Formats: sequence, structure tokens, C-alpha cells
Amino acid sequence: MSLSREIARMIINTRYEQLPAEVVSFAKLCILDWLGSALAGEKQQPAQILAAIAEDMGGSGQATLITGGTSSVWNAALVNGAASHIVELDDIHKASIIHAATVVIPAALAVAEWKRKSGRELIAAVVIGYDICYRIGEAVSPSHYYYWHNTATCGTFGAAAAAGYLLGLTEEELIQALGSAGTQAAGLWEFIEDGAMSKQLHPGKAAMNGVLAAQLAQRGFTGATRILEGRRGFFQAMSESADAMKVTEGLGQTYKITENSFKIHASCRHTHHAVDMILEMLQERDIRPETIESIAVKTYQVALNITDNPHPQTVYAAKFSLQFCTALAAVKRSAGLADFSKSALADPEVLALMRRVEVGVDPQIDAAYPEKWGAAIEVKLADGTRIAKQTDYPKGDPESPVTDELVDKFRKLTADRPAEAVERYVERTLHLEELAEAGLLLSEL
Amino acid sequence: MSLSREIARMIINTRYEQLPAEVVSFAKLCILDWLGSALAGEKQQPAQILAAIAEDMGGSGQATLITGGTSSVWNAALVNGAASHIVELDDIHKASIIHAATVVIPAALAVAEWKRKSGRELIAAVVIGYDICYRIGEAVSPSHYYYWHNTATCGTFGAAAAAGYLLGLTEEELIQALGSAGTQAAGLWEFIEDGAMSKQLHPGKAAMNGVLAAQLAQRGFTGATRILEGRRGFFQAMSESADAMKVTEGLGQTYKITENSFKIHASCRHTHHAVDMILEMLQERDIRPETIESIAVKTYQVALNITDNPHPQTVYAAKFSLQFCTALAAVKRSAGLADFSKSALADPEVLALMRRVEVGVDPQIDAAYPEKWGAAIEVKLADGTRIAKQTDYPKGDPESPVTDELVDKFRKLTADRPAEAVERYVERTLHLEELAEAGLLLSEL
Repeated sequence: MSLSREIARMIINTRYEQLPAEVVSFAKLCILDWLGSALAGEKQQPAQILAAIAEDMGGSGQATLITGGTSSVWNAALVNGAASHIVELDDIHKASIIHAATVVIPAALAVAEWKRKSGRELIAAVVIGYDICYRIGEAVSPSHYYYWHNTATCGTFGAAAAAGYLLGLTEEELIQALGSAGTQAAGLWEFIEDGAMSKQLHPGKAAMNGVLAAQLAQRGFTGATRILEGRRGFFQAMSESADAMKVTEGLGQTYKITENSFKIHASCRHTHHAVDMILEMLQERDIRPETIESIAVKTYQVALNITDNPHPQTVYAAKFSLQFCTALAAVKRSAGLADFSKSALADPEVLALMRRVEVGVDPQIDAAYPEKWGAAIEVKLADGTRIAKQTDYPKGDPESPVTDELVDKFRKLTADRPAEAVERYVERTLHLEELAEAGLLLSEL
Repeated sequence: MSLSREIARMIINTRYEQLPAEVVSFAKLCILDWLGSALAGEKQQPAQILAAIAEDMGGSGQATLITGGTSSVWNAALVNGAASHIVELDDIHKASIIHAATVVIPAALAVAEWKRKSGRELIAAVVIGYDICYRIGEAVSPSHYYYWHNTATCGTFGAAAAAGYLLGLTEEELIQALGSAGTQAAGLWEFIEDGAMSKQLHPGKAAMNGVLAAQLAQRGFTGATRILEGRRGFFQAMSESADAMKVTEGLGQTYKITENSFKIHASCRHTHHAVDMILEMLQERDIRPETIESIAVKTYQVALNITDNPHPQTVYAAKFSLQFCTALAAVKRSAGLADFSKSALADPEVLALMRRVEVGVDPQIDAAYPEKWGAAIEVKLADGTRIAKQTDYPKGDPESPVTDELVDKFRKLTADRPAEAVERYVERTLHLEELAEAGLLLSEL
């Protein structure tokens, strides 16, 4: 049986009612987390430019743009996808290196709003979309990732799967939709050399292309039936080797959305374990920064390769400095988007403490990487007290799940909006299964 | 200097007034030829499905759809691009294996109509678009073509270049536009295994994506500045080896649009030389099919590998049968789209003559392939007369140029439309430099 047919059958057979409770809860957290990122990004240039072009192009008022107003489902998928990948706080699947939210959710939400689908149907669509793109991403990892932005390329299949589910496609139609999705898959990493906005174009376009693929199939437009494993298909063309088993293993039995990692701090993932432990200590006892004599952080070598920077000069560099992030967390008691600012970079208290942070490798922790992303921390106070902590995973990883922290993060990302509206967003998303129309999620806009 | 900058400078420096007269004439023939293909394809399913989806999505009335009505430039580029690649009679560049018309012209025409650009500006844009995609296609040939549908992937750059020219982008903006084009480039050959409609989706999407790339750049959206030659760019990711010199050699001095080949018969290109010679003989003297004792066609081996089929069973197969095409031309005195029909396939006169066609290899002709696509033909009549002809190129190749034949082809492809409207299309296109608004080209719709 072709991989496309196996995927199509899994989609056809998925029912909200049969999803495990933890899968449903997880999907709602993914949607809340996505919404926070989208709301935090929508005023920034990449989203605003795409919104302006979408306005130029016009479109039927089928779905809500995160930037305001309604337009076609294409435009909603495009703009909302791009907006949600700007602040770089969206979720990630480590095994496939895919940010599924930024592609799958805007596609699914736009189609759900258009077709007046329920919250439950949106949840099922998101579960499906995450699952398909994670599986395809794992199949082509690691070689695909060198040239291709997995989030966009593999994400296109996820968006098509979610949209196809919501459009009620048949098995044969879903196979065609996957063909049309794969043949539109694009997104080269070359933009990273310039730090260009293609980073945001990719998920937006992938969401839009996925929706188009499903629409095409619904109307009888055909595509390759073996787009993944075919001789001139996605695997052969875009990876050095591909493991088809990664697509099919447990397909329809386990949903990979629960393997998702959330990012609750605004810094590089390799700094999160230290920030987590500092914040935990501060919850356990009140430690004033000036009473800290030293902080020793031991972790794996890769973390240091990327984040050992005792003198970050820009806000961006500060997010990649383990020393800065650790000190910032101790002083500000938080490491959210707003905490990483120019004023924090010049804050004498943060800078003074940063100089008292020492980083190094712990051989045992290093040996356990990358299965575990661990760290050990020891804080020495002026009175001689030593406080030590150790962790194997940053918070937000599936092994260290979070809920309250995600709601906190959402509130921080939407701090510029009326508090009542923010609480309604939280309420609606966390009770999404009760919404008769999923499109109401964005009704605060 | 980066390739993108070299291309951007060539675009900036191109002026209609400085184009050689033969380049201008050639561009107008390309546009006429494209228009015929688009009008012949618009009623078929792939175009109609895309038009229906475009209508669903809605869009501002900026540009004319070949299927009727107006919509956004995106929708016009998408629908018109797909429509023009259905009857498979659009032009081709042999060195890059690209059908530029089906991507570059719908993108350029939609933007020209939107921005009320003149016929002259459209001509310059088309010349630029053809040139850029041919050059990039040659640079990645032949390895790119194995997996990737060059027309779509390289065509995206051509569409962006043409659209960027018409939008008046600066050098820096054009570089960004090329970055956004390349990172959207997509289109896998896998669909060919199913004979799927991705064949038409690809050029339509490439045209639309190229327009989007130019729009993005105009509003300050950034892309990779070395999208072609960069470490994780188009060349490295999508070809085994690439020759950057093919992009720059003679750039801005010679325009590759004049290397274009036109297809004046509706069959496989490898049958055209024989059809040409039969039609030429029939112009020179009246030969009734029943008086033909035998026809011997000698050509290169590759032609026979693909077209030696003495018993074609379908209309599609008939277009790939050298024996059938030769006999059809002798009986019908034409080998246009309408001539290849089910009734022709059952026509006793065609079938009888087909059995008297012999095909074989001529060693000299074979040795000259692929630089020359030659054939020799000998017709033996019942009265003992032998008529022989030989050619190095099928008509429509740059070495064997055509004009009247293209106008004839246009009339045949639009035979279902009012004759006066058809003549106005021809008149306007062949005098495009006199049109104050290029969008008027489609005003007969």
C-alpha cells in the first residue's frame, strides 16, 4: 500500500471522540500556544507586509486574519502562518525539527472558520496535521534539514491533511491532496545567511499551499499518488535517505502531537534548563540577586558551543548567552519576550550577576545528550549557603510538561491587549471542545 | 558580485527601446503562441477547477482570467498559467527544457493589466522573464531535471523577474524578489507516473509565486541575497552540479528568448520533421494518399526510441507514433490539435497509409543529434516517382523560424471562437508595441 493511502486511511479513521484525553488536552495547549505567538507577532513587519498584499489581492470574507478583518482562507492561512513564526516562541518537535503549529494551525483554523466546523473538529484536524508532518519530517531526517526548512516542506503535508480532514475528503481525494501538497513543498535555508523574512514566508505559504492542495482534491484535481516514496517524489528528490517506517509505525495508534515541546522562555532552548532551575529556586525561597556570590551551570557541550557567551552585545545575542539568561532570570524572575530588551542588556544588576555566572561541561550530562537536554546548577550565596538543582529536560518538553506556564506565557505575549479579552481567549481555547464554531476563537480580534 | 545582483542589474538596464527588432518580433510571437494555448486549454478540467477555486477565494478585479471575468493578479497568474499548459502545444527551450511561456507570460500579463502597463513594457518584461529562467535552467541542467519540473522551478525566477520589472523594483528589491522566488520554487516530476494534473498546477503556481515574490520585495520583505549560488541555495539543494557561467555569459547582451522553439504540430516533437516534410511536399504537388506506395522515414535513434509505434491504440499514443503522424499529415494535410481525434484513429485511409510507412535510423543524422534534430524522407508513388527531402531541424526551431505557421496554429486553436475576435487577437498581439495598455490583449474575453 502506498504511504499516501496509509496516511489517507488514518485521516479518514480519526474521530474526535476516539482521541485519548491527553491528546485532546495537548492539542488545546498547542492551539493556545500558537495563538499567543500569532498575537505577539501580528504587528511586526513580515505579518504586516503580507497582510497589506493580501488586502491588495482581496478575497472573500471566509476567515479571520490575525492582523484584523476577514479575507479568503488562503490569505488567512498565509498571514496567520507568517505572524505566528515571528517571535520565535512557537512549539517544536525535536525528532523532526518541525514547528508544526505555525503551519498546521493557521491552515486548519482558516478552513474550520470557513466551513463553520466545531471546536472538536478543529482539535482532530490539528492532531492529524501535527502527526503527519512530524512523521514525514522524521522520515527525511536528518539529511533533508540541511537544505530544506522542514517546518515548511513537511508542514505542507500537515496543512493539507488537516484541511483535507475538515473538508471531509474521501480516501482517494486525500491521496490526491497529499500529491498536490508534496509537489508544492518548498523553502530553502539559504535565507538564514541574511536573516531574511523568508523564515516567516515559509510557514505562511506552506499553510496556504496545504489548503489549496485539499481544495484541489475536493474538486477532482489529481496529483501524484506516491508523492513520498515515488521514484521522483519527495523522499528521493529532497533527502539523501528516507525511512518510510517512520511514517507508518504506530500510524493511527499514537499521535505524535504529544511529543511536542513548548518554549516557555524567550531564549535559545539550550539555556532553558538553567532558567527553569533558577525560577524554581526563586519560587522556593526569596533570593535577592546581590546576595548571590556565584552561579555554576554545568551542561552538555553542544549547549556551550551555542550559548557560552559572557558578553552579549545585542538583544538577539543575549538570548543565546547562557550567562546572560541565567542572570536575567535571577534578577527579573522571568525570561519572557519582554524581558529581553535593550534596557535589560544595560541593567547593572543583570550585568553584575552575569559576571558571576560560570558555565562548563558535565561529562555525565554530556554523555546523555541528545536524548536528554540536561543541566546542573549550583548557586552559592554570600552567607555560604549552597543550593543545587539538576534536571534532564527543560520545561515544556514532553517529559516535563507544562500547563500553567503556557497560560502565563500567553498572558505575557498578549500583555498589550485588554485583560478580559485575553482571559476569554484562554477560556475558549482551553474549552475548545465546547465551541460550536471553531472560528469563534478569533472573535476578539 | 552575486548572481542575483547581476540579474537585477540586467533587469534594471533593459529598455524596450534598446531591444533588437528580432527580439521584439520574437517576443510577440511567443505571446501569440501562448495565447493560443491558453484559449485552447481554458475550458478543460485543470483550468476550470482552478478557476472555480479562484472564484471561491475571491479577489480584487485587477486582471483578466482566461476562463472569463476578472480577479486578483494572483488568481489570473494561477489560472492563466495552468490553462496554457494543458494542450501541450506551448513553446520550449531545448537547452534548459523549459516552457517559459506558460509561467512568464501569465505573470507578466496579469501585472501589466493590473498596473496598466503598455504593450512595450509587457514585451520587455517577457523578454526578461524568458531570459532569466532559460539561463537558470541551463545552469542546473541536466541533473535538476530528473526530479524537478524545470518549467515550474526555474520559471518562478522568470515570473518574478518579469513581474519585478513591471512593478519598477530597484536593484536591491529585485535581489530580494529573486530570493523570495527561489525559496518558493517547487514542482516534482513524480506526478508523471500518474499523468496527474500537477503538470498544470506547476506553471500556474510558479506564475503566482513569482508575482508574490515581486510584491513582497516591493514592500520591503526580505529574502536570501544569494539564493542561486549560496551554500544552502537553489543550485546546491536542487542540482548535482550547477554552472553559474550559464547565468552570466552574455547576460544583458543577448536575449535567449530567440532560442525558443515553437510547436506547430500537436504531436511529439520527434515526429515534427517528418510531418513538416510531408506538408511541404503536399504544398509543392498534389499527392493523393492512395497513390503513395510507401514512405520511408530515416532519423536519429532517440526519435525512434520514443516514436516507433506502428499500432497506436489511443489518441495520446498516436501523437507519439511516427508512423501515424506521418500518415495523418499526408491524409489530412495538417497535424493540429483537432486532427488527432478518435475518428482519425479509426480512419481507414490513415490506417492503410500508416501501414506503408517505414521508419529507421540514418547513421549520419543520428551522429548529429542532439545538436540537430534531423530526418530524411522518401515517398514512393505508385507510378514509380520518388520524392525525397531532408531537414536538420523541425520547423519552429530557431534555425527554422516560423511566423505564418504560428498564426495558422493560433487560428486552429481558437477555431471555436468568433473569427473576428480571433483576428483581433492576432492583430493586437502582432502589433503589441502599439497597445497603450497591454491588458487590452484579453479584452475579447
